[in-house]
Amino acid sequence: MKKIAYLGPKGTFTEVAAKAVFPNDEFISFPSIPDCMDSVSIGDVDFAVVPIENAIEGSVNLTLDYLIHNQKLMINGEITVPIEQQLLVHENQLENWTKIEKVYSHPQAIAQSHQFLRSYLPNAEFEYTNSTGSAAQHVANHPDERIAAIGNSLAAEQYGLTIAQSEIHDYENNHTRFVILKKDNICLTEQSPLFNGDKTTLMVTLPADYPGALHHVLSAFAWRKLNLSKIESRPMKTGLGNYFFVIDVAMKMDEVLIPGVIAELEALKCQVTLLGSYPCFSLAKKNNEVKV
Amino acid sequence: MKKIAYLGPKGTFTEVAAKAVFPNDEFISFPSIPDCMDSVSIGDVDFAVVPIENAIEGSVNLTLDYLIHNQKLMINGEITVPIEQQLLVHENQLENWTKIEKVYSHPQAIAQSHQFLRSYLPNAEFEYTNSTGSAAQHVANHPDERIAAIGNSLAAEQYGLTIAQSEIHDYENNHTRFVILKKDNICLTEQSPLFNGDKTTLMVTLPADYPGALHHVLSAFAWRKLNLSKIESRPMKTGLGNYFFVIDVAMKMDEVLIPGVIAELEALKCQVTLLGSYPCFSLAKKNNEVKV
Repeated sequence: MKKIAYLGPKGTFTEVAAKAVFPNDEFISFPSIPDCMDSVSIGDVDFAVVPIENAIEGSVNLTLDYLIHNQKLMINGEITVPIEQQLLVHENQLENWTKIEKVYSHPQAIAQSHQFLRSYLPNAEFEYTNSTGSAAQHVANHPDERIAAIGNSLAAEQYGLTIAQSEIHDYENNHTRFVILKKDNICLTEQSPLFNGDKTTLMVTLPADYPGALHHVLSAFAWRKLNLSKIESRPMKTGLGNYFFVIDVAMKMDEVLIPGVIAELEALKCQVTLLGSYPCFSLAKKNNEVKV
Repeated sequence: MKKIAYLGPKGTFTEVAAKAVFPNDEFISFPSIPDCMDSVSIGDVDFAVVPIENAIEGSVNLTLDYLIHNQKLMINGEITVPIEQQLLVHENQLENWTKIEKVYSHPQAIAQSHQFLRSYLPNAEFEYTNSTGSAAQHVANHPDERIAAIGNSLAAEQYGLTIAQSEIHDYENNHTRFVILKKDNICLTEQSPLFNGDKTTLMVTLPADYPGALHHVLSAFAWRKLNLSKIESRPMKTGLGNYFFVIDVAMKMDEVLIPGVIAELEALKCQVTLLGSYPCFSLAKKNNEVKV
């Protein structure tokens, strides 16, 4: 049985993601993304599962930055989970949910429910928490306060809360991608009904700030007809205007094309780091309701 | 006298930025970035000043996204401010600052002081606030609690707090870029000692998901030898994998080169929107101490 670190507490979307990939393993929740990544780095657990990108909010910068600047882990897999937000209250507050005075949740969950909150709870204050799970926990612990949490159905179940309003997220098609991290790049099996293709992720830093540098880099992929599923610029943390690029290629590492790209970029004096080549899994919308 | 909306409350870095560009105008603080942008959109104020990018944390997604998806405002100017974080306490707590139990601040300010917090306050909890200014205000209002705020020197002054530890940020060369927004694109004067060049910002959506699309887009800039100071992908909010690109060109809108790029991209079936052509200002490090 493998040990899996995930961004807790119980009832987070990360727990949903982790249990979809590792249905029969042991789960250990950690209070922050760096803590998850540190635990796999020092060998306390076998894998860490953390969010890396949301369809609405974009990249989870802390994950990308900690991966690049702090813990050199490899991406061993990806799992995509549909994000459906619910307004969770203690049953004591259910009747008067429109008089809720304060809403607790993770900043992204609050941002994802912006229109709902403006329309139905325009006078409610927000209080940011580290996770949707901890927001639900806080609400469960204060049954007589006029407060609510934003979180998923798993959190309602685990903390004994009631869904006052369901599916309060602004956008349909909201999903979050989670990555499965390990010190080395072993191959997770693709033999899963959730398997949805392969990816290879490269980090590229440009040689110098000259016009057309990124264009040169992309040429190496373009003439090989490689499909990039994402390109993201992140700060080098050395000053405004200094970036590196994280590039997702929609294929598994091979012996010709991707090594050719890497060699070509290195000849251009780029620094290239392989962050992983891995299978991607996807939890279909209805599967979210299945116990995983 | 012009009316300037800024992301408040008093003592935020946005207030420092706004007063550097508009030293003699009237300031109105708003509790959120969307509120600032709404107020200039409906004509209650002449300009809104909001953060758009931090050198460490990257783009302020809420600003970019609200600009693209909600309020169609133009960028009329940019001001860069050095970010120096201080650990602020009520003087009652000064002697025992190492026993602080909870640290209040904006998530980015907490992230920027990660190493300091881990080393000196490893057991302190974090509580996220909407701004560094409101964190300082909370600490000032609770003099007998073992709490601290992370914020700037202006906040210490305005809320009567004491700097327990100065310059606690992890990285040197940390700056934040703020944009000055208005409904139309008037030209702010470049006649300022803070003037530091011009920029033009374009939003580009790609015609379809085909290999090499972004490479084609960048070709239009590259063969004209235009220097891109930034390229950022942001989600379209229509699903994972759908992005638009915000591209900063390091020059003022002209009559030949940038219109040529736009025509070429439109011929490729890209959708191109001009977000503004504007002067950039920069507050030198030492000027941060000057009363602005």
